[in-house]
Amino acid sequence: MSDRVYVTEVGPRDGLQNENLIIPTPVKLAFIHGLVDAGIEQIELTSFVHPRWVPTMADAEEIFGALERKPGVRYLALVPNVRGYERARSAGCDAVALFTAASEAFTRKNINMTIAESLEIFAAVAKRAHADGVAVRGYVSTVYACPFAGKIEPEAVAEVVQCLFDLGCYEVSLGDTIGVATPAEVRRVVDVLGKRFPLDKLVMHFHDTWGMAVANVAQSVELGMRRFDSSAGGLGGCPYARSATGNVATEDLLYLLQHLGYDTGVDIDQVVAAAEGLARHLAHPLPSRVHKAWKGRVI
Amino acid sequence: MSDRVYVTEVGPRDGLQNENLIIPTPVKLAFIHGLVDAGIEQIELTSFVHPRWVPTMADAEEIFGALERKPGVRYLALVPNVRGYERARSAGCDAVALFTAASEAFTRKNINMTIAESLEIFAAVAKRAHADGVAVRGYVSTVYACPFAGKIEPEAVAEVVQCLFDLGCYEVSLGDTIGVATPAEVRRVVDVLGKRFPLDKLVMHFHDTWGMAVANVAQSVELGMRRFDSSAGGLGGCPYARSATGNVATEDLLYLLQHLGYDTGVDIDQVVAAAEGLARHLAHPLPSRVHKAWKGRVI
Repeated sequence: MSDRVYVTEVGPRDGLQNENLIIPTPVKLAFIHGLVDAGIEQIELTSFVHPRWVPTMADAEEIFGALERKPGVRYLALVPNVRGYERARSAGCDAVALFTAASEAFTRKNINMTIAESLEIFAAVAKRAHADGVAVRGYVSTVYACPFAGKIEPEAVAEVVQCLFDLGCYEVSLGDTIGVATPAEVRRVVDVLGKRFPLDKLVMHFHDTWGMAVANVAQSVELGMRRFDSSAGGLGGCPYARSATGNVATEDLLYLLQHLGYDTGVDIDQVVAAAEGLARHLAHPLPSRVHKAWKGRVI
Repeated sequence: MSDRVYVTEVGPRDGLQNENLIIPTPVKLAFIHGLVDAGIEQIELTSFVHPRWVPTMADAEEIFGALERKPGVRYLALVPNVRGYERARSAGCDAVALFTAASEAFTRKNINMTIAESLEIFAAVAKRAHADGVAVRGYVSTVYACPFAGKIEPEAVAEVVQCLFDLGCYEVSLGDTIGVATPAEVRRVVDVLGKRFPLDKLVMHFHDTWGMAVANVAQSVELGMRRFDSSAGGLGGCPYARSATGNVATEDLLYLLQHLGYDTGVDIDQVVAAAEGLARHLAHPLPSRVHKAWKGRVI
């Protein structure tokens, strides 16, 4: 099995969206460019949703307009519907992400739709995207549990994953939205999904709400998973749990993977520097433990 | 292999010692009693070192004097030498812990002795303890790395562990003092030590400085380790790295183990409550992620 692990940076979108703070566009751009310079090859920059719903992402067009693209890097944007897709295309975006959930209760509360309704909308987006040669990534949230419905069965996740692959997604990210998974649940999800899909097209997306994210990554990589989402500095809160912790921190992910002998192609020092530049604009310290320890390290 | 995991609470000693703050004795006692009520069966209460070196532990006699003992619970105190042992005995302590390291550079800087010198002192303490019917627990710190000497070989750790067992320790705790271990190093240490000692007499003691503690526990338990040290709330800093993180939090350890199907006999809710009572006297929020998430949980 390959020693190469692929890290998708989601800090500029999933991280900042949950910070509930407007960050100046040039600061976001410096953050993005710093992360790509560190070696990140896939990064989610922003979200083309209506600014009324997510004011922190209102500068999506400006981000893409001022982006200095590096060859070989995929720059993603989240789009909720065809209108968002059109905005993304006009802004020069050539890779989009679609976001649904494994829980009916969650899609209803979060996007006011059933899962099937969200997939219908995505079908229209995906059709346009494929005609335009735009890559489409899928997200399934609430993979382990839903803040409204509780535990979610991996079989329910598999159904939604299948629909996203049927729409032509090149990979599907499996989100532990409320960060409750432990290695036991990770084993079950990988077991069930691994029987239906190639592991190399599935991405593990952990939140550290309950402090289990690094352990879940360690378990996942041992099971053969090679793709992970993470957020520099551990940016992002969780709207469904009062907690200071967001996505698994890119620094923590890299520290673990490098010590386990995997090649990520990403430099921790430069990720720490990029996150540090952003942190000056936040109202709290970054939650990443490696970030803190790295700055004060003695050996 | 047994599903029972044994948790030793070290917050009142290892945790508070590194908080650099004097906590009132009644607050410490409420913390201790709360943790024992939660189901903790082994707890390190304090340290009989000279108050000049560790002012936060100057109330060691008062702690033992006012302790309400619960049958079946072992109440430990750290003793650095025969003088400390005598104080502990006079205070009514019947279980002591001895603390050395796997790194010569560390013992020299930390306690101004060679490892051999520290073991000579311990031999005198252990002799007295056995004559008195007092249980003796051993600690080896810097098991994975030393802040002064860098990487430590597991074979060097095994030598010190052997000496502590030769002195009659009923178990030896293996400390990742600066919290740098990852599951890869854990596998190596357990592999090397497991060939020489029964796993059931070895205790894993992780610090979360680099955010790896929970992953290391998950790896350890998978390898057959069944004894862990932890600190309620994740109390304690690290004097060798500027970091807010201390021992692995008891709450995080329990959450992980319970989800993995292990029986700990300890109630998370009561641990959270005990840590909460103490947290009001600290200058910072508790680092435990489960602690934070537990209070804001929705499912």
